[in-house]
Amino acid sequence: MISDSESHSSLEPANPGLSARHEPAVPVLARWAAGLAWPALPPAVIGAAREHLIDAAGCAVAGIRRGAAEPALTVARGLGGPPEARLFTGERVGAVAAAFGNAVAVHALDFDDTHAGGLVHASAVNVPVALAVGEQTGARGSDVITAVVAGLEVTCRLGAAAPHGFHARGLHATSMCGVIGAAVTAGKLLGLDETRLAHAIGIAASGASGLLEFLHSPASTKQLHPGTAAANGILAARLAAAGATGPAGAVDGEYGLFRTMTGRAPDRDALLGALGLRWETTRIGIKPYPACQLTHASIDAAGEFTGSPPSALTVTLHPDAVPIVGGPEKRHPRSAYEAKFSVYWCVAAMVIDGWVDLDTFDNLDRPDVLSLASRITVVTGAADSVAADAPGIVAGDDRIARVERSSGGGARTKAAANLGPHAGALIDAVDRAGVDRAAVGDGIPGEAAVDHAAALLDAIEGCLR
Amino acid sequence: MISDSESHSSLEPANPGLSARHEPAVPVLARWAAGLAWPALPPAVIGAAREHLIDAAGCAVAGIRRGAAEPALTVARGLGGPPEARLFTGERVGAVAAAFGNAVAVHALDFDDTHAGGLVHASAVNVPVALAVGEQTGARGSDVITAVVAGLEVTCRLGAAAPHGFHARGLHATSMCGVIGAAVTAGKLLGLDETRLAHAIGIAASGASGLLEFLHSPASTKQLHPGTAAANGILAARLAAAGATGPAGAVDGEYGLFRTMTGRAPDRDALLGALGLRWETTRIGIKPYPACQLTHASIDAAGEFTGSPPSALTVTLHPDAVPIVGGPEKRHPRSAYEAKFSVYWCVAAMVIDGWVDLDTFDNLDRPDVLSLASRITVVTGAADSVAADAPGIVAGDDRIARVERSSGGGARTKAAANLGPHAGALIDAVDRAGVDRAAVGDGIPGEAAVDHAAALLDAIEGCLR
Repeated sequence: MISDSESHSSLEPANPGLSARHEPAVPVLARWAAGLAWPALPPAVIGAAREHLIDAAGCAVAGIRRGAAEPALTVARGLGGPPEARLFTGERVGAVAAAFGNAVAVHALDFDDTHAGGLVHASAVNVPVALAVGEQTGARGSDVITAVVAGLEVTCRLGAAAPHGFHARGLHATSMCGVIGAAVTAGKLLGLDETRLAHAIGIAASGASGLLEFLHSPASTKQLHPGTAAANGILAARLAAAGATGPAGAVDGEYGLFRTMTGRAPDRDALLGALGLRWETTRIGIKPYPACQLTHASIDAAGEFTGSPPSALTVTLHPDAVPIVGGPEKRHPRSAYEAKFSVYWCVAAMVIDGWVDLDTFDNLDRPDVLSLASRITVVTGAADSVAADAPGIVAGDDRIARVERSSGGGARTKAAANLGPHAGALIDAVDRAGVDRAAVGDGIPGEAAVDHAAALLDAIEGCLR
Repeated sequence: MISDSESHSSLEPANPGLSARHEPAVPVLARWAAGLAWPALPPAVIGAAREHLIDAAGCAVAGIRRGAAEPALTVARGLGGPPEARLFTGERVGAVAAAFGNAVAVHALDFDDTHAGGLVHASAVNVPVALAVGEQTGARGSDVITAVVAGLEVTCRLGAAAPHGFHARGLHATSMCGVIGAAVTAGKLLGLDETRLAHAIGIAASGASGLLEFLHSPASTKQLHPGTAAANGILAARLAAAGATGPAGAVDGEYGLFRTMTGRAPDRDALLGALGLRWETTRIGIKPYPACQLTHASIDAAGEFTGSPPSALTVTLHPDAVPIVGGPEKRHPRSAYEAKFSVYWCVAAMVIDGWVDLDTFDNLDRPDVLSLASRITVVTGAADSVAADAPGIVAGDDRIARVERSSGGGARTKAAANLGPHAGALIDAVDRAGVDRAAVGDGIPGEAAVDHAAALLDAIEGCLR
């Protein structure tokens, strides 16, 4: 029996979750993350981090323009605080408040990137934390990108260490894992050493939260989760900096994140294998269209028919995709949410407009799109792959277009659409981040001075003016 | 299969967690809490709430004096924000920051109250939230007490709806349930109507967090959990006020708090039965001694021997208590934590000093206490009850003292010791809270003006000067 509500009587209790043969995951992750430095980042990883920064900013700008993040931004403004960092809208608030509001903005339209192996929206949490704490600390671009990479790696590896494990329990992996990534991102920018970063991770794990009950409701909690994770992650890093401590078993101990929240131990190789050699940051997928991913390849194939709408179209779908995006009731979607899960609407809009973006789902009464949608037939194709990897096959007027895999419009094309006319300045600022202009000798005087987190915020704010 | 990481294709999805026969718990709790008003509170409930306010303040003052909450107070000061509320130390910060720091302070010494049925430290979360949001909104004492009662009821009922259910999963019920109570406490003081309060509860459930991994470590996360719950609860209420929404099934839906975090549905009667008739606030136990509760009855019995220390003592313990507080290795505790789980140390200190309080565990090298502890023999008694309800039986020098159940020293005696020489002003302010001086006609001019949350904070701050 247990005497108090939570008590134990030994000073050095056994922890059945931790194997005697292995060091706990918390110090391993902390040591790797604390030691990660800009020169150790391969160019492909830096390149991927830049794309995720740009994509996250684009999603946030689009979300803010459409008012989708307004409650969180209102709350962030109300939190106020020392003018450490900026909301993307430009208001100066404390870094915790800024990261909270901005993280909700990135995820507000559910258009932000996803790590498929971990089922986590990794950038929605880590990019806003890096920008907020980076602005607070006056970090250089290279520090921001290094911190983002550390946080993305930890977030994605945590998710991948229990594939679908959090979701199976009804828990949102994005925030459950993201809060720990956020603590790592923030902790690096706050200069925590290995020991304090381990405490930050241990404290952050105790803030892991997020229920999937939004699946049964139109509630906005899904959008809020990255904000909560970002805020609690920064708080964990600050608490560790102030001397609070976290348990070494907070990830893989008996009562650590995995056994409590997924019911099993984490996959140790997915979590800790080849740290610094295998990079999950390069495996995070950027969502090309703001629609269900099972429509993406069909949308790409439909692009072959733009300019000359055929009289009728046939769309071939993977058997698993048919009930999700191809049911006959989906020809006339009743809400933007339904339209995003309608291959009829998405394909018809692509053929008629030549693009699919957020505006595609604004007006669901368009007669041209509805008319073409009514002339689309869905047929069930082969099950040669998983549904998400099935080719897009669209046929009409004796032509067949087939794309093996959706390429999307490219991250920068998408970002340009989301960011608007001032996209170039942000993309330029991100591409300059971390580049030592003196060393590359391009001779632009004063250029190095703009390589700071604040310059990135300037550019994002500029997109919203 | 699921197409996106978290997606569903129907607008009105079935929720297997919710029974068609029952209204979900969220709107039931919200309706009751939103409608709860001061005149509906029975005197015994008001009296209990006053005791918990005083006890929580006393625990916080003692914790702050001993430096046990310093990291959280440092972080709260750093959060800053509009000067809405005060940390107990007097600094003005935003209400979220104030509640965070103060909640950690209440729980810092683990000396605060517990609802045995729910295994939750209910006041540690709800009292700081009520004081902070009450000060922010200029609430009267009656509003503060009403809000505290609403939050305590919800917190305790959530805990009692899955007895030991959170703990069995390795989760800390105090913060898991407390965050929802905090949203209710804050929401009432922010004036949320029933609908918005339901959204606040739904949002708060998605912030439920707290791992028991601290049991395997000297880490400070246990102390931090009430702070995280308090902060996330206020944020949930503010988000709901700003228009964010939460799922109606967030408590008892398929992916609601109980099925995700305890693996089963909540006990509906414990959660929702006789709301406003059965009051859990009166069942919250105030911890008389800062030691394991299995020592409390023995400490009381030992009080019979003060003044004349016998040459040897025999302490009879419940069989389940022996391994926790009565093992022979506990005669010479090596840390304050061990001493709190040593019936030898606690009984010896009571006999020699005439009291057991926080100072009892400061110096573990006292020869008088160690000498008497070495002359105490523990014997195993009957198992007529659960260990926590076993009588205290201490024998020595041909006398036997037996107490059926620990009465402790009384909440106000304890509070006076914790609060110090200015305790009277706080106790007086709490006793005045909600009392309509004009109506009772005591004729003290201007007295009603001090019946505000701010007056309670003044008095607490005064204790720390």
